[in-house]
Amino acid sequence: MARNKGYESSSRSRVDRLRLCFPRLNADAFLVTHLPNIQYLCGFTGSAALLLVESSRSTLYTDSRYVFQAREEVAGARITIAKRGLIHALGIDLRARRGRTRIAYSLTHVTVEQKRALETAVGKRVRWMSGGDAIERLRAVKEAGELAIMREAAILISEVVGEVIPSMRPGVTELEVAAEIEYRIKGKGASGPSFDTIVASGIRSAWAHARPTSKPLRKNELVVLDQGAILRGYCSDLTCTVFLGRASTRVRGMYRAVLEAQEAAKSAIRPGVLAGDVDAAARRVLRGARMAQYFTHSTGHGLGLEIHEMPRLGRGEKTLLEEGMVVTVEPGVYVEGLGGIRIEDDVVVTPTGAVNLTNAPREFLEL
Amino acid sequence: MARNKGYESSSRSRVDRLRLCFPRLNADAFLVTHLPNIQYLCGFTGSAALLLVESSRSTLYTDSRYVFQAREEVAGARITIAKRGLIHALGIDLRARRGRTRIAYSLTHVTVEQKRALETAVGKRVRWMSGGDAIERLRAVKEAGELAIMREAAILISEVVGEVIPSMRPGVTELEVAAEIEYRIKGKGASGPSFDTIVASGIRSAWAHARPTSKPLRKNELVVLDQGAILRGYCSDLTCTVFLGRASTRVRGMYRAVLEAQEAAKSAIRPGVLAGDVDAAARRVLRGARMAQYFTHSTGHGLGLEIHEMPRLGRGEKTLLEEGMVVTVEPGVYVEGLGGIRIEDDVVVTPTGAVNLTNAPREFLEL
Repeated sequence: MARNKGYESSSRSRVDRLRLCFPRLNADAFLVTHLPNIQYLCGFTGSAALLLVESSRSTLYTDSRYVFQAREEVAGARITIAKRGLIHALGIDLRARRGRTRIAYSLTHVTVEQKRALETAVGKRVRWMSGGDAIERLRAVKEAGELAIMREAAILISEVVGEVIPSMRPGVTELEVAAEIEYRIKGKGASGPSFDTIVASGIRSAWAHARPTSKPLRKNELVVLDQGAILRGYCSDLTCTVFLGRASTRVRGMYRAVLEAQEAAKSAIRPGVLAGDVDAAARRVLRGARMAQYFTHSTGHGLGLEIHEMPRLGRGEKTLLEEGMVVTVEPGVYVEGLGGIRIEDDVVVTPTGAVNLTNAPREFLEL
Repeated sequence: MARNKGYESSSRSRVDRLRLCFPRLNADAFLVTHLPNIQYLCGFTGSAALLLVESSRSTLYTDSRYVFQAREEVAGARITIAKRGLIHALGIDLRARRGRTRIAYSLTHVTVEQKRALETAVGKRVRWMSGGDAIERLRAVKEAGELAIMREAAILISEVVGEVIPSMRPGVTELEVAAEIEYRIKGKGASGPSFDTIVASGIRSAWAHARPTSKPLRKNELVVLDQGAILRGYCSDLTCTVFLGRASTRVRGMYRAVLEAQEAAKSAIRPGVLAGDVDAAARRVLRGARMAQYFTHSTGHGLGLEIHEMPRLGRGEKTLLEEGMVVTVEPGVYVEGLGGIRIEDDVVVTPTGAVNLTNAPREFLEL
């Protein structure tokens, strides 16, 4: 991934926004350990790194595999190539400081083992503070440049699904459909799928997270297709459910209820609304259709550099939606022995409500 | 993934082997948090689970998304569907026990946040012990059934590379080659790539972990292809380096040195040898060719349910190789501005030495 020329300025402002959190965190610095957060703040996409953000400078620690890549990608941070481990190199730097440093870190992204190693490496010079989800909150609200990429990623996956659905017929295996989807994802210039593509047919469609198998599609089966693409680092996520043959009245009724639940959730989205209220809107529709017990997951999740980000659209979630957040809206019902139906779009929160990023047919497709 | 009929007995013996470690760990139970370890011990492949292995029973905690899948996959453990979080459900069970329980866990697979949540949920009834890498050590030595699958996964990826190399020519993009590789991986019945396929051409091949881009292949460039497949849960991992056109004497010499380094490392492999000595054997050859400074990573790594497992074939590693271990052997050299060369096979440690699982051409291919 070549350095985006516009990146330096946007990464600088991201780091500055993180620094604005230091007083609230009672910290002098933030040690960033989670790779997507590191990518967000300085552009580095390698698989081994620590980023120390201080009030007046930032330092990226990585290893010798990434000498060239770091030089190419990193904006707004010095690069230190660690010879004897990243934590060791960080420790040497921090031990050289005068006085005590209060460093915030994310408790959800540091293992017990890493924490012990950090404490050993830096000695008593450092006081560790919880950084909470400060960086995740920054990431939840997308900048215009991020939204432009995410719109492209969402259109890309919508096109892929539109192209693949007509080729679905009895005898084709779930794995073949998934292979076709992922081939087209790359063929359209995405770096890859944003998660392992789900193609679940027949009674397996009642597994909300089934992996594709060599099972062939058969006539009179539901098929859930759940897939996404990573385009220039950003994820999309789209689910369509189709039927091979003519569906029963019961299955059509299920589809209609899920679609109504999705529309109700989308209508509930606008800045200032609680994430939990969006979930409640979807759940209310399914309760009315006596299907609430089959809706076994939450209504959606934030989307961005990662496939699951803040905010979660789940029961009782207290996060307030803000303009620029991108979320999935994906209610579903799963009936053992019959099958499952899930309908998912990606939307951006705007002052006037949810605006679709994905663009897939929403009438019930009976192939 | 349907339940393998032979799985129940093998999973039972795996859990029993883990129980044999309890006295050494000074523990009554092991709380398994790492998903591949959970899969290894009870067969469950969902994305949210905890497995509590006690001396006389095991309990899998998962959530409502996985009701059907857990019933289908899990062998040798009771299933508890947690309604208010996995840690909460575990806490209720443990608080109901009499007396104190000493529970081992892996410090590298529990975050600081999870540890705090565990402590809150279980109260003072539990004393937490380090479980070290007890499960990873079990996993490092493969059973006959695992080796059979891994051999298939290795042959599969070798065939894919053999089929794709002839289609590589100037003008085709890195992403197109990667898409073709991943399409064929699924087409041959694997569930997917074992990591994001690397296709790195020209000077980008000097990035040991470059991601494919829309850059077209050009004449007179090195191209590193690094890919693997997941077959029935097990990973393969294969790297080939080819040249488009006729290579210079320098590049041919580099290739020859890397291949000799790989052969030296393979020859050093047998039960009872230190992992670090295998790494040293590869490094010695490259030092003789004055290329040691360009070999910027370790010689290889264990392979199995995960793409990186024990043992690591790195500088100074003290693990003793054992019969049944599966490792990659993948020395490489990376010269900024010129390009990189890496040659990788998967081998199994047998009483008579390393036996190849992968099967790729090793002469230097000038296309």
